[in-house]
Amino acid sequence: MKNINIGLIGFGTIGAGVAKILLENDKIISRRLGAQLELKKIADLDVTTDRGVKVPDGILTTEVNEVIGNPEIDIVIELIGGYEPARTFVERALNSRQSVVTANKALLAKFGNELFAAAKANGIDLYYEASVAGGIPIIKTLREALAGNRINSVCGILNGTCNYILTKMGDEGADFAEVLKSAQELGYAEADPTFDVEGIDTAHKLALLTALAFATEIDFAAIHVEGITNIKPVDFAFAREFGYKIKLLAIAKNEAGRIEARVHPTMIPKEHMLAKIDDVFNAVFVNADALGPSLYYGQGAGMMATASAVVGDLVDIARNLNSDNLRRIPDLSFQENQIKPGNYRPMSEISSQYYIRFSAHDKTSVLSRIAGILGSHNISIASVIQQGGGDGDAVTVPIVMQTHKALEKNLRAALDEIDQLDIIAAPTAVIRMESEL
Amino acid sequence: MKNINIGLIGFGTIGAGVAKILLENDKIISRRLGAQLELKKIADLDVTTDRGVKVPDGILTTEVNEVIGNPEIDIVIELIGGYEPARTFVERALNSRQSVVTANKALLAKFGNELFAAAKANGIDLYYEASVAGGIPIIKTLREALAGNRINSVCGILNGTCNYILTKMGDEGADFAEVLKSAQELGYAEADPTFDVEGIDTAHKLALLTALAFATEIDFAAIHVEGITNIKPVDFAFAREFGYKIKLLAIAKNEAGRIEARVHPTMIPKEHMLAKIDDVFNAVFVNADALGPSLYYGQGAGMMATASAVVGDLVDIARNLNSDNLRRIPDLSFQENQIKPGNYRPMSEISSQYYIRFSAHDKTSVLSRIAGILGSHNISIASVIQQGGGDGDAVTVPIVMQTHKALEKNLRAALDEIDQLDIIAAPTAVIRMESEL
Repeated sequence: MKNINIGLIGFGTIGAGVAKILLENDKIISRRLGAQLELKKIADLDVTTDRGVKVPDGILTTEVNEVIGNPEIDIVIELIGGYEPARTFVERALNSRQSVVTANKALLAKFGNELFAAAKANGIDLYYEASVAGGIPIIKTLREALAGNRINSVCGILNGTCNYILTKMGDEGADFAEVLKSAQELGYAEADPTFDVEGIDTAHKLALLTALAFATEIDFAAIHVEGITNIKPVDFAFAREFGYKIKLLAIAKNEAGRIEARVHPTMIPKEHMLAKIDDVFNAVFVNADALGPSLYYGQGAGMMATASAVVGDLVDIARNLNSDNLRRIPDLSFQENQIKPGNYRPMSEISSQYYIRFSAHDKTSVLSRIAGILGSHNISIASVIQQGGGDGDAVTVPIVMQTHKALEKNLRAALDEIDQLDIIAAPTAVIRMESEL
Repeated sequence: MKNINIGLIGFGTIGAGVAKILLENDKIISRRLGAQLELKKIADLDVTTDRGVKVPDGILTTEVNEVIGNPEIDIVIELIGGYEPARTFVERALNSRQSVVTANKALLAKFGNELFAAAKANGIDLYYEASVAGGIPIIKTLREALAGNRINSVCGILNGTCNYILTKMGDEGADFAEVLKSAQELGYAEADPTFDVEGIDTAHKLALLTALAFATEIDFAAIHVEGITNIKPVDFAFAREFGYKIKLLAIAKNEAGRIEARVHPTMIPKEHMLAKIDDVFNAVFVNADALGPSLYYGQGAGMMATASAVVGDLVDIARNLNSDNLRRIPDLSFQENQIKPGNYRPMSEISSQYYIRFSAHDKTSVLSRIAGILGSHNISIASVIQQGGGDGDAVTVPIVMQTHKALEKNLRAALDEIDQLDIIAAPTAVIRMESEL
């Protein structure tokens, strides 16, 4: 077996983690692989900052072309993140017939179809285990281990920042803003947390999981995305009363070829494995026809966990290179000619159970008027929690309901009507409930 | 890509599951693989019983040699279980240069070293994902996804029967015998449950995980094994009071080259992911230097889940065959020349926290005498629960303690001494507590 030479672009946190593994775990890796992974070059604009990892002299360069197109480099790792120049660099590496490993979900969610086509055209590998759920080997599991299964659904907690915030809000009854602030202080949330808390990062990852599971093109635009910024402490209290937890879930389902792909806060029964995933941890729950339910849990972000996934990919590609067997696994699990545009169910057509919290003026007639409107839209109520019960116009009380399964469009129509009522004090809050994951 | 021909030996429950997947999911498999997996022959002594799966005419045979050594069969699946004739059949298939897939942990735990040597000598693959934790892809994860990591520990709930019994005993406060009986009625326990409840099945699986994680030969005899038959309902009640759950854990740890491999009932903090695995489900918890903690959860037994793992192996080997790349992954994760006999720590030298339940005559002096003996053996008490407290000789009361970390041999010496005391009414019960998994 020949040694495999690695070039790294982007010497940030994850890049430093990858360098650390390649330099410190080189012996244990070669004891498995039977060859050496040699870190030949690291390209970054900043070659002076100390990243806490000592790399051999002469490896660091500001010149990306010492990696891309360098015939001595077999595999290029892209860890700069974002769209540009990452996209250009990955394309150039692929077109130089260098295999690529990336952790860049934003890039793949938006440009994955064309990048994978370029990988295919050049007969090389583009691996991306680290792009979904950090160190958890969910891509390998879907592409390889579950190859005998028809996958019915893939649901995940894919953003550690959101899961940390929701866990703390639930445990401490604290406000979103307050918990976000402490998460930022602890380094669990970015200074600008928009991508995380608005669900966009989760949706990038779901776009990849959906394609992998259902043999569809990557289609970020088809994913319905809601973030966690509107959830109130009171919702956690009611969730607990119903026996549920609130999680930001990525949900992909396939019912007879009709695909649902959505990211939104979700109440799940507290006995469900996904309800038991706390703090910054990620997990992916897969329902497959033969295997049944399975769950994969670990750190979805962070220097070393993410680097672990990158190095796993390097070892796989090294094995492919050494046996002249690149393209061993199709990029998106299915042979390229099997991948079609997805047939997505519009959000208005999904059905779900719903948690609904009305802010009502405390009038005795409230409940019957709300229930009447819901009924007229074919929404049937499973249970109600009404606090207070006087007849004062000044007091606002929450009325909380759990519905049976209903169509989203019916729910929206009913709430549009209800929110016009003079007895309603504030826009009604809704959280979808899932008990069939 | 050419089609790959499969021969199955053993048409029992799992065998029927494999046939079902190969026949019913053939299209989705070939859409991933780019080739067909063709089930050519099924050998079983009983070719008349209806297994609930319709196989094509002419496939069933009582003649095992229509599978083994048949040049038309590329991969042989062994699903008869047990040592013989499974061992002979697997050996003959390997020596006929047919790759083999097996779910037989007993066989591999005892004869794995020589069978893998035969696979290597013949240049073919012997895959065994289904032999540990059923459908959970833990072998693939350890051999491939975590290739960049040094693995510190692997701990698992690997026997669904035991986990079902322990879950029910904990939930319902019922006796072992009582719950076993209901498990047998539900089909969750065998008529003769010895292999399961005595921890032997779990130890077979741990023997494989230990070798995979730590580059050691498979050594079933090195594993300390205790079953679950002595746990009493009262132990669950005290565990709850301490904030712990009781699970039958398989534990493999590597501290600077010194290996611990043991199977025994274990109290684990209720917040730990392994404490959250209920009923017949299995899970494996891995602690690795880069990835950190990760967990893999699913059905550890059963027709279709186990068959899913078998078919995952078939697809992998088919890819290897089609690219002339058998032996892509070393059998036990490490290159063969890296595998050494394990350096095992004897049980007497392990250290652990302990839950100890004394059955004492209710005398005021009891606690001080017990504590004195524990102290003289360097065992320090973290907390005590003593119920009752009178001075009647006739009454037996439990005294329950949680110790700080102590050496097993010190604990055993102390208990030998304590159990001789006239104030002790019955042998003392001990359950190890693990909070550092």
